Amino acid sequence: MTDSVPPALIAAVDESRQWSRLMGMAMLGAIPGEGVNRAALTPLDRQARRLLVAWAEELGLAVSVDEIGNLFLRHEGTEPGAAPVLAGSHMDSQPSGGRFDGIWGVLAALEAVQAIREAGLSTRRPIEVVAWTNEEGGRFAPGCMGSMAWAGYRPAGTWDDVTDAAGITFRAALDAHLEAEADILRRPLGPAGTPPFAYVEAHIEQGPRLEADLLDIGIVTAIQGSRWFVVDITGESSHAGTTPLFLRRDAVQDMVRAINALNALTHDPLDVLRFTVGRVEAHPNTSNSVAGRVRFSIDLRHPDAAVLREKGDAIESTIKDALCFCTAVVTETFHAMPTAFQPVVPDAVERAAAAVGARALRMPSGAFHDAQFLVPVCPSGMIFVPSRGGVSHHPSEYSSPEQLATGAKVLAATLFDLANREA
Amino acid sequence: MTDSVPPALIAAVDESRQWSRLMGMAMLGAIPGEGVNRAALTPLDRQARRLLVAWAEELGLAVSVDEIGNLFLRHEGTEPGAAPVLAGSHMDSQPSGGRFDGIWGVLAALEAVQAIREAGLSTRRPIEVVAWTNEEGGRFAPGCMGSMAWAGYRPAGTWDDVTDAAGITFRAALDAHLEAEADILRRPLGPAGTPPFAYVEAHIEQGPRLEADLLDIGIVTAIQGSRWFVVDITGESSHAGTTPLFLRRDAVQDMVRAINALNALTHDPLDVLRFTVGRVEAHPNTSNSVAGRVRFSIDLRHPDAAVLREKGDAIESTIKDALCFCTAVVTETFHAMPTAFQPVVPDAVERAAAAVGARALRMPSGAFHDAQFLVPVCPSGMIFVPSRGGVSHHPSEYSSPEQLATGAKVLAATLFDLANREA
Repeated sequence: MTDSVPPALIAAVDESRQWSRLMGMAMLGAIPGEGVNRAALTPLDRQARRLLVAWAEELGLAVSVDEIGNLFLRHEGTEPGAAPVLAGSHMDSQPSGGRFDGIWGVLAALEAVQAIREAGLSTRRPIEVVAWTNEEGGRFAPGCMGSMAWAGYRPAGTWDDVTDAAGITFRAALDAHLEAEADILRRPLGPAGTPPFAYVEAHIEQGPRLEADLLDIGIVTAIQGSRWFVVDITGESSHAGTTPLFLRRDAVQDMVRAINALNALTHDPLDVLRFTVGRVEAHPNTSNSVAGRVRFSIDLRHPDAAVLREKGDAIESTIKDALCFCTAVVTETFHAMPTAFQPVVPDAVERAAAAVGARALRMPSGAFHDAQFLVPVCPSGMIFVPSRGGVSHHPSEYSSPEQLATGAKVLAATLFDLANREA
Repeated sequence: MTDSVPPALIAAVDESRQWSRLMGMAMLGAIPGEGVNRAALTPLDRQARRLLVAWAEELGLAVSVDEIGNLFLRHEGTEPGAAPVLAGSHMDSQPSGGRFDGIWGVLAALEAVQAIREAGLSTRRPIEVVAWTNEEGGRFAPGCMGSMAWAGYRPAGTWDDVTDAAGITFRAALDAHLEAEADILRRPLGPAGTPPFAYVEAHIEQGPRLEADLLDIGIVTAIQGSRWFVVDITGESSHAGTTPLFLRRDAVQDMVRAINALNALTHDPLDVLRFTVGRVEAHPNTSNSVAGRVRFSIDLRHPDAAVLREKGDAIESTIKDALCFCTAVVTETFHAMPTAFQPVVPDAVERAAAAVGARALRMPSGAFHDAQFLVPVCPSGMIFVPSRGGVSHHPSEYSSPEQLATGAKVLAATLFDLANREA
């Protein structure tokens, strides 16, 4: 390992270049209130990727894409056969998302590589900037499909039949996407025979802690576990004016009973367990018909695997016991166990933060990230920067140009360190 | 009044012609399970109207349309200046509706007029078959816009800004509709100086009573009152993994609190009060974001005006008291007080049923209908036929060809009676 960070490297990280790239990306899918709606595998997503590819090619990086659409920009090392260091995040957003979640991690990695090259430095190992496909899961659930498939956590064909709100399958959207990027070099899916030396993901915190404690950098040590479920309640649609309540099989009313019971199941006086019903769809969804079907989502998270298992496993029976007139089918669509990072990357981030003069704190992540699926493949870790008010998945999500530049400097120093190690 | 119904009139009502017209109409907007989705002011609605107009013109009826799209087919009387008898219903359906609700009332009126003419009979008064615009309110809420505007209950421009799920305004949809029917004679809106002599609406029961009691005909004496509300709950969208529950402003959770409180408010041990939440929309509606906004509908009905007023007036405060973290705006979009029909039409229907040999029962209507807005304008009434299992607003809605033919015979005899009265 290197003991020092070249001052020229830190000086080469360009705050205004990184910010203007972020603002350029934010125009692709801009929504009112400075938000972004850029769903995975859409024409807007492809526009954003083309813009990234243009910047990468200008810099001399080698561009390639794999069969699930993960996009790689490779900076060559002085020992080309050496295991590369991977750094990146994702480019898709929530439907009503912000300008920083995901995309900053990709642009920070590009900024770090550009700074290394412009400072006249080289690295022993290659560095690959990566943009993982569909991390958010906003259009096609679950999220993290690109990193899950790459790491072999699930086969790439697992989600072929998943549909978006318009009924388009993930398979059809991915085929159209790959067709539109047929001019980009295709690479095999996954680490193949050569696992990366490490993976580093820069990301906004999406929580209030760094801002509240006046800190610059979060050294992420672990990620809490997440389980997602889809609940389909089936009753019978009938006339709202003529059907007595005792004859109804009202899916909205049974959904309310189910959520009341789930609130009791997941009640946590410590407010660590996170239970969310974020998506609700009723059918036929007209004011004078009793709803015959309701679909709703459950997002359950906890840092302790035992709690997550116990509460998650009780969801189906809790719902079924709560229903009065309808039937329910409960499907688990995503299950990411709590993850702890090996010390390699967090330790490197800690030294880099010290070298840059950033105030840093070791902390867990409440959100899930592509990084957690890399853990079984190679030493991994994350770098957080503060989020104003802890807000994310919302147009008002904000981190300042200076905070993001500090993050990019720490990332550059971390990557330069890792990419010059022998083992 | 006439004391007898000519046997030739009853014989001229053609069961198979009426059924095949119904099945022809059901193909326009057919959905799986023998259902129909034919929303108001859509191309499918216009196709259905063109088919009706073709049948009317073949029969020699005069076709006209008013400024809100109500469609009239006029059979001339022997005293052309006499106040006409109106008969009809609506042609739009629920999004997941059946083949009979509404459309049968229009086709039965056409069948009745055709039977009068083919039996070689004439009437002193004109008979006008009418198809009212947007009774269901499934695309543009509330329902009964055509009859409300015609009767002067609300000005025709009241709903200009109402939007459908795609964001199209009622005004824009109506303009396009009138443009597409510009070749049809335009008539003034409303009864103008000459209120109709009477209005008769044939309709499926949409409840189980006639079938359960082995009856053929419901002589409708009254319609229960309805109030519709739209509730907009506003909280704040945030990240499902990182936002502690005590910091959330979760619109789905506050909707559940509101519905729990409304269930308590509207609890009726006699099961006469009808409270329905049929429509629910969450935003951004993604599984890993806390919902920042929810909109839901309330449909409240009762035959007693005092109960409807008291419970309806308590809805807004009940919701606001129930919310913990969000704010709510409650908008009343429809208010139809309970209505009783004058005896003129129900008495005529009763005699007609007796003449036809149909087993009939006087009964109130649980559903609202265009007929209730005609009550202040002219003597009005309705004829019900049985609904299998009491089901409607559902693809499995069903009345048999024979039941519908009996209904058309009773309607024909009723119209022949009313249209030959002097006063």
